[in-house]
Amino acid sequence: MTVSNMNYMSRAISLSKKALGSVSPNPAVGALVVNNDKIVGEGWTQPPGQNHAEIMAIEQAGELAKGASLYTTLEPCNYHGRTPPCVEKIIKSQIKKVHISILDPNKNVYGQGIKKLQEQGIETELGELSEKVTMNLEGYLKFVTKKSPFITAKFAMSLDGKIATKTGDSKWISGDKSRRFVHELRSASDAIIIGVNTVIKDNPKLTARNKSERPISNQPLRIILDTNLRTPLNSIILKQPGTTIIATNSSDDSRFSNFPNVKIWKIPKYNSHISIPDLLATLYNKGISNVLIESGGTLLGTLFDQKLIDKVIAFISPKIIGGENTNSPVIGTGIESINDSIKIHNSKWRKFGDDMAMIGYCNKF
Amino acid sequence: MTVSNMNYMSRAISLSKKALGSVSPNPAVGALVVNNDKIVGEGWTQPPGQNHAEIMAIEQAGELAKGASLYTTLEPCNYHGRTPPCVEKIIKSQIKKVHISILDPNKNVYGQGIKKLQEQGIETELGELSEKVTMNLEGYLKFVTKKSPFITAKFAMSLDGKIATKTGDSKWISGDKSRRFVHELRSASDAIIIGVNTVIKDNPKLTARNKSERPISNQPLRIILDTNLRTPLNSIILKQPGTTIIATNSSDDSRFSNFPNVKIWKIPKYNSHISIPDLLATLYNKGISNVLIESGGTLLGTLFDQKLIDKVIAFISPKIIGGENTNSPVIGTGIESINDSIKIHNSKWRKFGDDMAMIGYCNKF
Repeated sequence: MTVSNMNYMSRAISLSKKALGSVSPNPAVGALVVNNDKIVGEGWTQPPGQNHAEIMAIEQAGELAKGASLYTTLEPCNYHGRTPPCVEKIIKSQIKKVHISILDPNKNVYGQGIKKLQEQGIETELGELSEKVTMNLEGYLKFVTKKSPFITAKFAMSLDGKIATKTGDSKWISGDKSRRFVHELRSASDAIIIGVNTVIKDNPKLTARNKSERPISNQPLRIILDTNLRTPLNSIILKQPGTTIIATNSSDDSRFSNFPNVKIWKIPKYNSHISIPDLLATLYNKGISNVLIESGGTLLGTLFDQKLIDKVIAFISPKIIGGENTNSPVIGTGIESINDSIKIHNSKWRKFGDDMAMIGYCNKF
Repeated sequence: MTVSNMNYMSRAISLSKKALGSVSPNPAVGALVVNNDKIVGEGWTQPPGQNHAEIMAIEQAGELAKGASLYTTLEPCNYHGRTPPCVEKIIKSQIKKVHISILDPNKNVYGQGIKKLQEQGIETELGELSEKVTMNLEGYLKFVTKKSPFITAKFAMSLDGKIATKTGDSKWISGDKSRRFVHELRSASDAIIIGVNTVIKDNPKLTARNKSERPISNQPLRIILDTNLRTPLNSIILKQPGTTIIATNSSDDSRFSNFPNVKIWKIPKYNSHISIPDLLATLYNKGISNVLIESGGTLLGTLFDQKLIDKVIAFISPKIIGGENTNSPVIGTGIESINDSIKIHNSKWRKFGDDMAMIGYCNKF
């Protein structure tokens, strides 16, 4: 792989990030048309039903697509979905060569997009920066292959492993830079889940906000797990821009009818709590691929116990809280022997101001 | 400061580390004699009553000390203690210039050593690498200025802030490289303190061991806080090389008379526990300047509550343990509001294999 190819694919990855959080169940793809070593078109996946990244880039290139190279992070589609196949557009535009970082595991595409291009005499190159693209598309890749959303657990704790003081104060354990990054995480997510206890205790907004603390235009779904509908009517989350979902097993949902931004999802119960498999099936059916859990230790414990967490982002702040009966980030049933602990792999440690964050994976695909 | 001066002082710092853990209440000093850009003598503080670093370096240099430069991490002494004053030896050896990193705050020395050298026409240079030396001598500096030992808290926890599973299993939360570093910490300490509950639960050896897991020759004191003498007679710690102290308020100490390595310290009680101020006074009187706490959350909590911890070394291992009723590294009374948390300053994060360690300070001097 030459440096310029790497640079072009790297630019395509940057473009793909503009789509994250607003295109599910479609993959967030980035694409680039390069003619005579000049970028003549750039694209990224538009919201469902609108242009794919390749189409946007080719349309931007116009006549200059002829004889040019296309760089795309994911194999172009070869089937009619909500939009016509990208492969047809590529052929029609007389692009000469297509660089594809990874194949699309979606069975409607896998290997067929690249094959069609080759049959038409278009040169192809596969695999450039594939590791990075795989990581950026982890939500989509799990969604397609496992038919379940990709679940990221986020928590912030003190250096002595506490998420609040003994009185419940938790504002703020982590510093400004960590909290800023959480807003980026939210904006790249399709949905955020918390338990009703966090709503009652912390009364969070749970919106994705920009640097001036203003909500961004495209909000992730906010989902409250609230088996018995205990969400207080004066909770600030009910009036935020975007949609708040209350996932419940109670039928007494008329009390939320005055909140235009609130929707109720009826989910079956299991062991007197919302059934997590049923919740995940609902999320999958609604095309939600990237889910961020921002709950307290009880819900996170349940999810870790059931091995449902794919990725962990843990912020550790250099302060000591101490005290008995303080909350811990993960509770649940837990394990008996250290050997049975959930090992985080591919962990990366990243500094945010004084805080340190660990970003790593629990499940392999 | 020229590069060669920095290199020489840096070498003196390296030499000083050989003394750490075996010379208290004396400071662990390193010294270097340099003649015509060649190192002709190296020294470090020997055990109490034996040579100071400067004497060792000058004696090694012999005739070559004449006209040479001396580099020493701490101001040379100018008084008769257990050994004759270093300043006299320097003058006698006809050393031409003395580089001193920091002044000795000990009131018998402070400023007088350097003054005497200057009076004799010996050139002096003060302050090279002073920040690094101050950090390396932190135990001695606190001991001399505050008349109390320097206290370092060490703990290892999982990514979800637990020091054991719900069944109490804690072997091993941290990885090999972290545990190796703990042995280095132990060997640089004068004493290690644990609570009797840790003895009962974990039955640790608490020795400083080399890479082949064999105890090193110079063991730190092992101190068990055991108010009511509950240390089991079959505890492995009682038979290790070096000395195990049982700090107690009970008089029923004859049961340990068969253990030649065990000594009893009688310490007053406060609130039905060993009085920490009395313990610290005892440590000070015995000339112990560097103390490592390797206890569980109860004792660490008490010490953090009383603002007695100077330095924290926390290992964080990328695994999730989960579970209710698991132990947390710091308990005690704790705080009510996050604003009141103990902030760690000058924190440095350092990787040990997959683990991350935070090394930072609670108290300022």
